[in-house]
Amino acid sequence: MEKYCFGIDVGGTTIKCGLFDTEGTVLDKWEIPTRMEENGSHILPDVAETVLAKIAEKGIAKEEVAGVGIGIPGPVNEAGEVPVAVNLHWGYVHIVKELGALTGLKVKAGNDANVAALGELWKGGGAGCQDMIMVTLGTGVGGGIILGGKILAGAHGAAGEIGHAHVKDNMEEACNCGNHGCLEQLASATGIANLAKKALSASEKPSLMRKAKNVSAKTVFDAVKEGDELAIQVAAEFGNYLGKALAVFSAVVDPEIIVIGGGVSKAGPVLLDYVTGPFREHCFPPCRDTRFALATLGNDAGIYGAAKMLL
Amino acid sequence: MEKYCFGIDVGGTTIKCGLFDTEGTVLDKWEIPTRMEENGSHILPDVAETVLAKIAEKGIAKEEVAGVGIGIPGPVNEAGEVPVAVNLHWGYVHIVKELGALTGLKVKAGNDANVAALGELWKGGGAGCQDMIMVTLGTGVGGGIILGGKILAGAHGAAGEIGHAHVKDNMEEACNCGNHGCLEQLASATGIANLAKKALSASEKPSLMRKAKNVSAKTVFDAVKEGDELAIQVAAEFGNYLGKALAVFSAVVDPEIIVIGGGVSKAGPVLLDYVTGPFREHCFPPCRDTRFALATLGNDAGIYGAAKMLL
Repeated sequence: MEKYCFGIDVGGTTIKCGLFDTEGTVLDKWEIPTRMEENGSHILPDVAETVLAKIAEKGIAKEEVAGVGIGIPGPVNEAGEVPVAVNLHWGYVHIVKELGALTGLKVKAGNDANVAALGELWKGGGAGCQDMIMVTLGTGVGGGIILGGKILAGAHGAAGEIGHAHVKDNMEEACNCGNHGCLEQLASATGIANLAKKALSASEKPSLMRKAKNVSAKTVFDAVKEGDELAIQVAAEFGNYLGKALAVFSAVVDPEIIVIGGGVSKAGPVLLDYVTGPFREHCFPPCRDTRFALATLGNDAGIYGAAKMLL
Repeated sequence: MEKYCFGIDVGGTTIKCGLFDTEGTVLDKWEIPTRMEENGSHILPDVAETVLAKIAEKGIAKEEVAGVGIGIPGPVNEAGEVPVAVNLHWGYVHIVKELGALTGLKVKAGNDANVAALGELWKGGGAGCQDMIMVTLGTGVGGGIILGGKILAGAHGAAGEIGHAHVKDNMEEACNCGNHGCLEQLASATGIANLAKKALSASEKPSLMRKAKNVSAKTVFDAVKEGDELAIQVAAEFGNYLGKALAVFSAVVDPEIIVIGGGVSKAGPVLLDYVTGPFREHCFPPCRDTRFALATLGNDAGIYGAAKMLL
């Protein structure tokens, strides 16, 4: 009988690993380094080794393991194939086949942002829901679309790439993707810092933000909490871009809940205040009661979601 | 053994009906009037009556009928419940339960635009695909999202309501939904006519469109085909709004194909020329090869899709 499941989250520096029971309780949690050398060819063997070592350490029979779920920073299709994952120095890799052969276990693979979204649906901010949009506000803007409790991968593995939704015309700066005017350029930690820098240089107003050596999204929301006028203006600008974009996304998939995570979400509930207003103003009226929540699993969302893919 | 299936498309004036075999060949096609009196309470009994009459007429045994699929102009949830359908003068109706009791057959129900999208996926412009965005450019802008060959209904029955995606800020005129700046206001037949009227009054340029008594979307695309400069400008403006919006929708669900139907699509392939450019310029780069096609089933898409729900 299947009693256990592994959840693996491959990042650029470390690989996070979790051993779960089939109810979703984490029984053990550890990390191994991500070895990038030789085109990242050690990554899957290292994952297999640490999984098999854990099975031996815990005296688990292979028949008791439902499988290994793994999240990867790159596009992954339904079959578990990665065409290319720049951040891991990978070309084409068939994760399900390769990791399956290395471990003798059932494997499922997904894009890391999508997998983290599934984790938040299972045990985090979206618990109890089936249909969710997850937004991750970090260095970039990531996303994941969960429908009927399952990750939506998309025809090019690009479903949920909401950071690259076009939200602003005539923007001169280019996004990392090469386009201009992506949501990521305005609502990521970097984007918020840029909005703040522009507001500071365009105004003579005093602001707590002027004291910061490097203005960051945290600088902005810390100042918002102190009632800083210029910071409030920046937060409103950010919230307007993100809230309007989420309203558009809701006209497409109409989720039960929108969960916001990533480093920027550490600002707390005040963040939602700036997003929900513009959302409700611009969404299709029947969607106005769509719930919003903050993510709760932090960096563990990936291992939870990876394990959930098997269960 | 199941050999037959009914597809019903309820409109404001007529109810279109189709008898299909399970391969999707239409065996018979007819219409009955939509009786709106007494809060539309005759509609489902009329549908039941015509279905049962057809079964008797053709000498079909009930066991040979897979069921009745029905498309409704209003929101329908996964269970087949309609909270309210203004166009039919309906309050709450549990279609699956009521029509099931009236016919003794299995019933599935969906929103008409979503059901038409499923029809186009099955036997029309999207045939052979599993994941599709359908856009219907008529008096309004309707839509349907099909993922894994199934209609996406959404938490409020509002998935695919892409006509109400916000695409333009500071628009004074209100949309039928009450919001301002919806895609429907710029890319529907009405929207295109409004863009043309504005272009005509803002310019002194000669244009074939000036000859029309009432400028319509057809006037615009007819003039485009004659090389009319002002009409080309209007078509480009329309294409820019629709193409950019579809690029955003693709960052959410990443479909294999985008199918464009409705009265405006009768303009033919020239329509796609104006949409695909702005789409490719603004979409997430891996989605650039997303296919575009025109709908092919016309007004029959609804009965095809309704039947397909059962198969």
